[in-house]
Amino acid sequence: MTYCVGLLVEEGLVMIADTRTNAGLDNISTYRKLHLFNVAGERVMMLASAGNLSMTQSVLSMLTEGVDGSDGEPPQTIMQQPTMFKAAQLVGRAIRRVREIEREGFEAANLRMEVSFLFGGQIGEEPMRLFMIYSAGNFIECSRDAPFLQIGEHKYGKPILDRAVKYETDLYDALKVGLVSMDSTMRSNLGVGLPIDIAVSRVGALDTEVNHRIEAGESYFHDLRERWSAALRAAHRAIPRPPYGPSGA
Amino acid sequence: MTYCVGLLVEEGLVMIADTRTNAGLDNISTYRKLHLFNVAGERVMMLASAGNLSMTQSVLSMLTEGVDGSDGEPPQTIMQQPTMFKAAQLVGRAIRRVREIEREGFEAANLRMEVSFLFGGQIGEEPMRLFMIYSAGNFIECSRDAPFLQIGEHKYGKPILDRAVKYETDLYDALKVGLVSMDSTMRSNLGVGLPIDIAVSRVGALDTEVNHRIEAGESYFHDLRERWSAALRAAHRAIPRPPYGPSGA
Repeated sequence: MTYCVGLLVEEGLVMIADTRTNAGLDNISTYRKLHLFNVAGERVMMLASAGNLSMTQSVLSMLTEGVDGSDGEPPQTIMQQPTMFKAAQLVGRAIRRVREIEREGFEAANLRMEVSFLFGGQIGEEPMRLFMIYSAGNFIECSRDAPFLQIGEHKYGKPILDRAVKYETDLYDALKVGLVSMDSTMRSNLGVGLPIDIAVSRVGALDTEVNHRIEAGESYFHDLRERWSAALRAAHRAIPRPPYGPSGA
Repeated sequence: MTYCVGLLVEEGLVMIADTRTNAGLDNISTYRKLHLFNVAGERVMMLASAGNLSMTQSVLSMLTEGVDGSDGEPPQTIMQQPTMFKAAQLVGRAIRRVREIEREGFEAANLRMEVSFLFGGQIGEEPMRLFMIYSAGNFIECSRDAPFLQIGEHKYGKPILDRAVKYETDLYDALKVGLVSMDSTMRSNLGVGLPIDIAVSRVGALDTEVNHRIEAGESYFHDLRERWSAALRAAHRAIPRPPYGPSGA
């Protein structure tokens, strides 16, 4: 299992990804799912992955080594792409190439070829963008109306995002709400776990401002979890008793 | 879509169910999913359903009219069952009967035969119990360690239950937290919607203490939603800014 969330607000981009992978509940490991492709001053690109690990790793390797062109064009790397849109298209093409290569083996083993990616960043003077790329290689783009995208186990952590994140939200508030969303997911689903990788890029900086791994026991995140739990308890205590009972109605 | 939650705490049982059904996004209706089988002073039984509506309705009708016995026994109704366990078994048998009857038609139409039920209550002097019954007719029972069960779109509303409900939780606090869980689900998933049916039974009462439909615009539920949103906003504002940024680190 996996949970990754990307938040694209006015001031910049936040990406958060857990690191737990499992092939069955008895085979749990830690793998990095958030990958950065940076050339400071030229481009910042962040790619977070969910789904079959062998496929997402192959997609990553292919994006670095080069994805075969469709009409005998030379292989293209993600670093060569001139725009975020073209780079997202290349991620989609890499997914389709890996599917072609692996299909027979996956079908024989009755495995599902499911992967998804969050891909965000900025190249040169074009706007900062955030995409969600599906197993079929198609993709959608994050909009101002709902300035976040999620992959993996997205449902547990969605209510807080729906309520608390707007396009105008401060960049570090977006990071904070994203971490609360991650915490909610981890508490309710053992398939999502620490450490957590986070990255932040401010619009126009063309570099990451944060690139950090939150390990188990780190005091800020521990404090955030405790404060959030205490606040939720206080919040539901402060709501009046339902008026439907025998003493209320 | 559907969301139903049952909470079995020390003082009693709470059941909450939405009423939205949809056959495609363009065919949305309101159907009662929470059904009560009461004989005051003798038994109180609550059954909430999720999944294919034609199947859950047939199961309900069969439980009322009688489920055929397996070895030529006479048909059995849910009201005849002497214990909650036997009644849960009968629900399971009704599901299997409906599956047998409908299988051919469903397969021809490539429809999924998925249903699930929450079934809780108390008969005579036996303890109050709560079960979740699956499509195959098998079931699990709610325990003190996790005193709630959910069917349907359960993920959005699980984080608040995980944090706020214990076996010792007050009965009407359990109802309140259940309503917050329902609110979180409705905000994040259009397939779950008002009105909401709620029922409460206190241990030993052998009757419902609340049997109410919350309609859109009802002031208590509206107030609960507003207060909860405001409290969440205040809660994440009160958490300190992440220390990872350039000014923080």
